[in-house]
Amino acid sequence: MKWEIKFTTKKPELKSPILIEGLPGIGNVGKITADFLIDGMKAKKIGEFQGEGLPHSVFVNEENLIELPTIELFCKKNKNGKDVLIVAGDAQPVDEKSCYAFCEQVLNLAEDYKCSEIITLGGIALKQEPQNPQVYCTGNDKKKINNFTKNTKLRKDLYGIVGPIVGVSGVLPGLAKRRQIPAISLLAETFNHPLYIGIKGAKEILAIIKQKLKVKIDIEMLDKEIQEVEQEINEKAQELRSKLTFKDTSDKSNYIG
Amino acid sequence: MKWEIKFTTKKPELKSPILIEGLPGIGNVGKITADFLIDGMKAKKIGEFQGEGLPHSVFVNEENLIELPTIELFCKKNKNGKDVLIVAGDAQPVDEKSCYAFCEQVLNLAEDYKCSEIITLGGIALKQEPQNPQVYCTGNDKKKINNFTKNTKLRKDLYGIVGPIVGVSGVLPGLAKRRQIPAISLLAETFNHPLYIGIKGAKEILAIIKQKLKVKIDIEMLDKEIQEVEQEINEKAQELRSKLTFKDTSDKSNYIG
Amino acid sequence: MKWEIKFTTKKPELKSPILIEGLPGIGNVGKITADFLIDGMKAKKIGEFQGEGLPHSVFVNEENLIELPTIELFCKKNKNGKDVLIVAGDAQPVDEKSCYAFCEQVLNLAEDYKCSEIITLGGIALKQEPQNPQVYCTGNDKKKINNFTKNTKLRKDLYGIVGPIVGVSGVLPGLAKRRQIPAISLLAETFNHPLYIGIKGAKEILAIIKQKLKVKIDIEMLDKEIQEVEQEINEKAQELRSKLTFKDTSDKSNYIG
Amino acid sequence: MKWEIKFTTKKPELKSPILIEGLPGIGNVGKITADFLIDGMKAKKIGEFQGEGLPHSVFVNEENLIELPTIELFCKKNKNGKDVLIVAGDAQPVDEKSCYAFCEQVLNLAEDYKCSEIITLGGIALKQEPQNPQVYCTGNDKKKINNFTKNTKLRKDLYGIVGPIVGVSGVLPGLAKRRQIPAISLLAETFNHPLYIGIKGAKEILAIIKQKLKVKIDIEMLDKEIQEVEQEINEKAQELRSKLTFKDTSDKSNYIG
Repeated sequence: MKWEIKFTTKKPELKSPILIEGLPGIGNVGKITADFLIDGMKAKKIGEFQGEGLPHSVFVNEENLIELPTIELFCKKNKNGKDVLIVAGDAQPVDEKSCYAFCEQVLNLAEDYKCSEIITLGGIALKQEPQNPQVYCTGNDKKKINNFTKNTKLRKDLYGIVGPIVGVSGVLPGLAKRRQIPAISLLAETFNHPLYIGIKGAKEILAIIKQKLKVKIDIEMLDKEIQEVEQEINEKAQELRSKLTFKDTSDKSNYIG
Repeated sequence: MKWEIKFTTKKPELKSPILIEGLPGIGNVGKITADFLIDGMKAKKIGEFQGEGLPHSVFVNEENLIELPTIELFCKKNKNGKDVLIVAGDAQPVDEKSCYAFCEQVLNLAEDYKCSEIITLGGIALKQEPQNPQVYCTGNDKKKINNFTKNTKLRKDLYGIVGPIVGVSGVLPGLAKRRQIPAISLLAETFNHPLYIGIKGAKEILAIIKQKLKVKIDIEMLDKEIQEVEQEINEKAQELRSKLTFKDTSDKSNYIG
Repeated sequence: MKWEIKFTTKKPELKSPILIEGLPGIGNVGKITADFLIDGMKAKKIGEFQGEGLPHSVFVNEENLIELPTIELFCKKNKNGKDVLIVAGDAQPVDEKSCYAFCEQVLNLAEDYKCSEIITLGGIALKQEPQNPQVYCTGNDKKKINNFTKNTKLRKDLYGIVGPIVGVSGVLPGLAKRRQIPAISLLAETFNHPLYIGIKGAKEILAIIKQKLKVKIDIEMLDKEIQEVEQEINEKAQELRSKLTFKDTSDKSNYIG
Repeated sequence: MKWEIKFTTKKPELKSPILIEGLPGIGNVGKITADFLIDGMKAKKIGEFQGEGLPHSVFVNEENLIELPTIELFCKKNKNGKDVLIVAGDAQPVDEKSCYAFCEQVLNLAEDYKCSEIITLGGIALKQEPQNPQVYCTGNDKKKINNFTKNTKLRKDLYGIVGPIVGVSGVLPGLAKRRQIPAISLLAETFNHPLYIGIKGAKEILAIIKQKLKVKIDIEMLDKEIQEVEQEINEKAQELRSKLTFKDTSDKSNYIG
């Protein structure tokens, strides 16, 4: 099972960039943060990851068009801060083997670009919606974690607090260690419910990334967008709840099809 | 994992046909529509799709004979309307990888025949049986959707109404876009229950296909057949319910075996 | 995914034998019937099927020894009746692909031996324990079914009575049709409960096989054995129920390990 | 699907060692016993098993560092007793095929080292926490079992007491038989609950291994460690229960990610 990166633009030249990964997961914190980051930094899409192991389902977008789940690669050159590569998308590889294979391909990219560091994003499931979600930092390199958490509210006491970190956000730092690429993982508290969208946690992570990476992100602009998204999501969720039968996707049933 | 088409007749010559796909899914709307279409158009079986990933279970038919699940290819030449290829069958590929592999093979066929368009069929699950099921139209090409929905009751406001479209009906238009083959998906509201057969939704889709493709389909003849089928299904379902233990197929248990 | 047959004795010469298959399933009717058949006919083990896709679990036998799940091949030459090959074992291949691959290998064997016919054995799940289980006959060849059911109590009205036949008992006749090997399936009513052992159904099938194949089976001797087995099973089941936590094997949890 | 052993030190020379395997499972008895054995014998890590089929999740350790699940190889030379190889780790291969492939690789190692014997470790699930867990002994070789159980409290009456032994602890002795390597399995009674840690059962197995293999293990030192671990686990478990939502890992949901 192989994955490959298909560049959709000329492959850009970057100075030992930071690679940031955010894909769907608990509260979708990773995906939301990555999406806002792309928006707020005006990052540009440069490629797509293609391979076996994405879900066999499609989305209908705002323009009523069908979209395959994709994992895309974005990039942003920053004059005064760090160049950034962002791996973002609609889905995680569906099983163990495709997850490992995907992560190895991301690491090939990271080696190719001589990335100085990898940052993965995710959520920690709480029983109740957190009003002021805390963000934890773990990773594969003690020094990097200490540097990154310095002068921040980031917590480092994850041990015993959580179970395993499942999916790309965990496996990527794990495999990165074998290649001696330092990687950290930023995990924001969120509410564990299929319809909950962990925007508050995402915002906390964004603020930290802005501070630490010295990249320009227009968080105020995002604030407005967040408000709109929140309202829209709540309306849609209500509509959905009242109109349709929900099928838990975990039982692999078709919702439509 | 490869799929191939095994032609069971001489490969027919067709003028840039339309390819229509209908396989089991929510309310079985896709499968029923395709089956009635084959019947009502008197389409002819020309081949079978063979490959890894069909269910390891068989059906007992009316003649008490065992039948493997198959996905078949039918064709109908239409003098005054469009030539049509129909992909119909008893089952969907069981997992993500075989679904993608199957769809790629359908697209190979579509390219080979220079198909002008692909239409996939499916159902949208409602909590209650809809008396007058509405049909929605989405796809991978805005212009095609606009052309197809013109002068019809087809709705285009799917965004936010439904979750992902799972299986061939969704993945086929998604992958078709990469090959620049326009594809639309017609999805009729139906009731989401294992024993419910979405005949009403299927009839709505049939009427639209008849109107838009200018193909001859004897819907009145079908009406009679539908009545018979409905009665038979209801009787059998009742018999089944009263006599047998039902095992949810999702738990992969054997029903017989 | 390949399966192969490893002969453990010299490959015997047989006159277009009948191949009988009985593996675990609903009420374990198929497996029990095959095991009693081997016992009652004094059939001899001649080989083992090896391949990917058997469960990753082992049994502890009466001698306190660990046994891997196996699927074995037995044979019995019958002077006045038909030569018989029996495929029996502790497990079914665990997934769709390994089931198909296994069945193709059984058919290779059947072709190699010029088998005149295949008989698969299984159970039909009822909600309650049947006092006088009926046996149904279906298959891939109308003439064979008619011949086999003649002068028996075998029922042929399976259509609409049951859902799909899952596993080797169904897929084997299905695939056999493609090679023009006639195959029938004998399915006895049984009770669908994990701890129920469908001995009554098995006995009904045995009587029919004895009658139709004119093979010598000492059913009276079996009667005694059946009584002993039944008592032993009931005692063990009670012991088990009172002492241990049961974990449904469907959730893939380890029972021991 | 291949597994390989990657030696992390110079490959040591050993005199027909005993290979002991202990991985996660019921009550984690196997894993805990192997871990305490490594600790108590001061065994040294000499390698890692790498291959497809480990879970796609990582742990956060006491130092707040991410760790991939690994299966490691340890070794201990014993002047007066037996040389010992220990296979220990954080996870079992996730599916049937990777389990078989992993076991075959362990057996390659055992053959390479001319291992005299294999001992696998595991738990037997009881409904209630056992105060004085009994240890059962089964295996693939009657003589070895008899020798090992002599002058011990080990029970040999497993037949009918338990269902299948799932995972490496069962498959390894099963496959070892094909290569004529004698193997036994030591299974301690334990409580079947996700948060229960079968330390009592592990201690019973340790005492037996110490007695039979004449290896030096400082059980008293372990006693203290056990007390500490027990207390810590109970505190953490309580914390976890009060703070977080638990998701059953069997439904493949992400806990974090």
